[in-house]
Amino acid sequence: MRSFSFFERFSKAFQDHPSLTRIIVVSTISGGGLIAYSEANASYGATGSAAVVEIGTKKKKVVLLGTGWAGTSFLKNLNNSQYEVQIISPRNYFAFTPLLPSVTCGTVEARSVVEPIRNIGRKNVDTSYLEAECFKIDPSSKKVYCRSKQGLASNGKKEFSVDYDYLVIATGAQSNTFNIPGVEENCHFLKEVEDAQKIRKTVIDSFEKASLPDLSDEERKRILHFVVVGGGPTGVEFAAELHDFVTEDLVSLYPRAKGSVQITLLEAADHILTMFDKRITEFAEEKFSRDGIDVKLGSMVTKVNEKDISAKTKGEVSSIPYGMIVWSTGIGTRPVIKGFMKQIGQGNRRALATDEWLRVEGCDNIYALGDCATINQRKVMEDVSAIFSKADKDKSGTLTLKEFQEAMDDICVRYPQVELYLKSKRMRGIADLLKEAETDDGSKKNIELKIEEFKSALSQVDSQVKFLPATAQVAAQQGAYLAKCFDRMEECEKNPEGPIRMRGEGRHRFRPFRYRHLGQFAPLGGEQTAAQLPGDWVSIGHSSQWLWYSVYASKQVSWRTRVLVVSDWMRRFIFGRDSSSI
Amino acid sequence: MRSFSFFERFSKAFQDHPSLTRIIVVSTISGGGLIAYSEANASYGATGSAAVVEIGTKKKKVVLLGTGWAGTSFLKNLNNSQYEVQIISPRNYFAFTPLLPSVTCGTVEARSVVEPIRNIGRKNVDTSYLEAECFKIDPSSKKVYCRSKQGLASNGKKEFSVDYDYLVIATGAQSNTFNIPGVEENCHFLKEVEDAQKIRKTVIDSFEKASLPDLSDEERKRILHFVVVGGGPTGVEFAAELHDFVTEDLVSLYPRAKGSVQITLLEAADHILTMFDKRITEFAEEKFSRDGIDVKLGSMVTKVNEKDISAKTKGEVSSIPYGMIVWSTGIGTRPVIKGFMKQIGQGNRRALATDEWLRVEGCDNIYALGDCATINQRKVMEDVSAIFSKADKDKSGTLTLKEFQEAMDDICVRYPQVELYLKSKRMRGIADLLKEAETDDGSKKNIELKIEEFKSALSQVDSQVKFLPATAQVAAQQGAYLAKCFDRMEECEKNPEGPIRMRGEGRHRFRPFRYRHLGQFAPLGGEQTAAQLPGDWVSIGHSSQWLWYSVYASKQVSWRTRVLVVSDWMRRFIFGRDSSSI
Repeated sequence: MRSFSFFERFSKAFQDHPSLTRIIVVSTISGGGLIAYSEANASYGATGSAAVVEIGTKKKKVVLLGTGWAGTSFLKNLNNSQYEVQIISPRNYFAFTPLLPSVTCGTVEARSVVEPIRNIGRKNVDTSYLEAECFKIDPSSKKVYCRSKQGLASNGKKEFSVDYDYLVIATGAQSNTFNIPGVEENCHFLKEVEDAQKIRKTVIDSFEKASLPDLSDEERKRILHFVVVGGGPTGVEFAAELHDFVTEDLVSLYPRAKGSVQITLLEAADHILTMFDKRITEFAEEKFSRDGIDVKLGSMVTKVNEKDISAKTKGEVSSIPYGMIVWSTGIGTRPVIKGFMKQIGQGNRRALATDEWLRVEGCDNIYALGDCATINQRKVMEDVSAIFSKADKDKSGTLTLKEFQEAMDDICVRYPQVELYLKSKRMRGIADLLKEAETDDGSKKNIELKIEEFKSALSQVDSQVKFLPATAQVAAQQGAYLAKCFDRMEECEKNPEGPIRMRGEGRHRFRPFRYRHLGQFAPLGGEQTAAQLPGDWVSIGHSSQWLWYSVYASKQVSWRTRVLVVSDWMRRFIFGRDSSSI
Repeated sequence: MRSFSFFERFSKAFQDHPSLTRIIVVSTISGGGLIAYSEANASYGATGSAAVVEIGTKKKKVVLLGTGWAGTSFLKNLNNSQYEVQIISPRNYFAFTPLLPSVTCGTVEARSVVEPIRNIGRKNVDTSYLEAECFKIDPSSKKVYCRSKQGLASNGKKEFSVDYDYLVIATGAQSNTFNIPGVEENCHFLKEVEDAQKIRKTVIDSFEKASLPDLSDEERKRILHFVVVGGGPTGVEFAAELHDFVTEDLVSLYPRAKGSVQITLLEAADHILTMFDKRITEFAEEKFSRDGIDVKLGSMVTKVNEKDISAKTKGEVSSIPYGMIVWSTGIGTRPVIKGFMKQIGQGNRRALATDEWLRVEGCDNIYALGDCATINQRKVMEDVSAIFSKADKDKSGTLTLKEFQEAMDDICVRYPQVELYLKSKRMRGIADLLKEAETDDGSKKNIELKIEEFKSALSQVDSQVKFLPATAQVAAQQGAYLAKCFDRMEECEKNPEGPIRMRGEGRHRFRPFRYRHLGQFAPLGGEQTAAQLPGDWVSIGHSSQWLWYSVYASKQVSWRTRVLVVSDWMRRFIFGRDSSSI
């Protein structure tokens, strides 16, 4: 019955030849042109080592919990037909979360930022998906217990268990209310697509409410007071988007609301966007002040009631009436992860601890990545004796500079803090590091190191251990890394490619995960964006906005969402944002 | 802060010059071209009689209830600055309802078929909008009582009253459950945008449910059994859309569901699409049978339980397990209209009775149009003596053929059934009508008619009184007609242009409303549509589908929705429909 063979072939061509995705040329209506180019993400590319499955070999069952950035990136990059992947998540789609603030105001539609998870993944890997939430992990029996989010009958929800050979936990985190009373009940969050849709409806509803007759000025002002709690990138972007939506679209449609709208941003720290360069923070604060967005710094929220929010600023508690609050202050642990951490003796942590290969500490064949996990970087000082004896090849009890230099590569791979320490002290090499240690000892000029001198040289190194931020970028890189490890599991078992094992024999199978920061954006509204790129390169303004458009278009998970997002942007330019309350 | 002056100018150009809307050329990605032309809707065009408001004249307040087809068409066409329009509706947008079946399966997005009501209406007419539902109309004090759909506080909803000079009731109708037990609780309806969104989510959820493990075949089949009740255009189109969605998009994504999906259409009458030509009905029934859609004719639903639906077919009651039911059987009266009808003595009617000028019978300055109203066409036989004496200009007590012929124009305008009667009997003119009357009397050949002969000639005429169907087309034409009347109210007071008043002196101010049927579509899935155009011109197949695309693109209420709908269609061609459960 279908006769769209042309279109099918066309769309198939894109799927079969991913290289086509490197260039998007979008012809625009009305001469406004947008050329978004996609930097091909070489470091994530499949390593092309698809192993041939021998007939009769049973496939290994990988259970993947979660369809966020980490899980989707894992799925997208896994390229080995020896695995069958069972995905379990309450969301049957991947959402491009960095665009959620845009969804709240209709700059981009909700459906343009989601892609069904069943469309993601390579064809040679067997994948299947179950729409359910995992509520218990049992590492002893290698089972996860799940619950369908929909009741199958009136007598309750359906529960079932799934076996695994490998478990990949990528369930992400949830919003953190810090147990402040009233937050859960009265605030909007901005983690899921549904949250963004609800915020959009609430904004429009507020304007409709404020247009009703017989309303006091005070009440109208309360209804149109939008409070954003949290001055991180999400909160700042939402405040900026909302300001644009109000000034560009809503004020002309709702004349009664004019003059009554107020946006307030509450931040507990002394500045907003603290993770960015000072120049960006300053620019953002100035721009917001020009735009009339009231930024209240050093404000700790203490309580949220139905119609007002209490905050402590410089020791003084004051209460502000509000119409809507968006809570965007940080992340907390999901119940299933909390429970699992208790089981495996990590009960008092914030997130699952993994080693540098993303393996959950104390478990076999369980991996965790993304916002639900943190990497516990091994300290140099814990291993310093083992490092010394490994480096001391002639077992002389002292280390020559040459011996140290030979071991240095493996040390730097295993303990990235060493390299960071050298960089932070502007040292060119190990010789400098040794010199530093020597100065304590006076002007001694020997080239043989004893263990005490070695320890002393490395003593400050562990101060450079960095925790990775809970961002989409980290999660995506971890997913791609883990997929690569899975792809090469057998190969690297035979020919390990990691650094030398300091406390054991031989080498680690893989190089540990290493995060490569590609930069970060902070859209500030009015077609201006702040960008901080690697090497402390800072750019603020309209040009960064176009860079933002290009990067976000290129990073889309599928051609469908890419076309949709770009056409949503064009639609917004031409027709503005829609204010229908659906 | 905004620098999109080019885009602003561009979009303004379209708004200021509606003639531009006559041609849409949409350049398509990938060479698949679609040229949709918009037939300029001349008969609805503004008559350009915008009266200049004298300074000091108080504007007349028109309260418009409803933002559906009738209300929006009224608003769009009203072009007289002497009025200020207060729109009251719980929906702050107009929805292009004929595309709702497409929204249920994601062929078109919900937001592409809605336009904020504040964007509709001409600039020279003062309009304002209140998001509220009218729950009481008081014609004696000229007030409507309304309730905001959102509570302003925990202490309940906000109520207020609004005064009017003229009241235009266009609240539409609601789904009719015929008081069959279980329908309200267990069925989906398809009247509002939210309904369509819910259906879409439920369809995807059903497929996710059916993919869960540990499910019996029987249970899986039940979950994937979609029942449509009602074989009218909406029900048929939904069944067809769902079939396409399942076969084109879902089956490949949900391999477990393959072979378990069943669509059943229950229709109480002997055929589906009874309002269409027989050829269309036959084609549709055959196509559905080929597609595997089970059409059960002569099936009266008697009860709906949580997991099964009971229907009586040829006297036998049987019960069928189902996963989802869409109820699309007809329309019922809204509570506010029911209450108002009771007040004005129309308590036992289905809809508000109006005269041929859309004025509610028994009320001053209240108009009703669209699905909430029916026109009570005046019968010829009620007025026959008055007609006779008006036509008998020389008061001779008899009517010559000439006298009759002279009166005929006015009679036909006032009583359109006369013209329909002539047409149905294939008579060319009044002479034939008279001949028919004469034959009763033998071969008498006089040219003078007595009142009894006149009555006898017209006695069968009233059988041709037609009730208008409850369609978007009727509502839109009524809205445009009423706006034209409002525009020319003063002018026509002085120079009435309607037919002679049979029972009074002078002429009616306006010509009565006359419906012009422009044809009707029934999309049948698989890129095939049945079209029945005026003059019983029937077309079925792919060509009609393209006609359907063109007409539906051209009939969009704004350029924004037009572009969105067309790009949604293109997206569907290229990428298929989205199956994310949001």
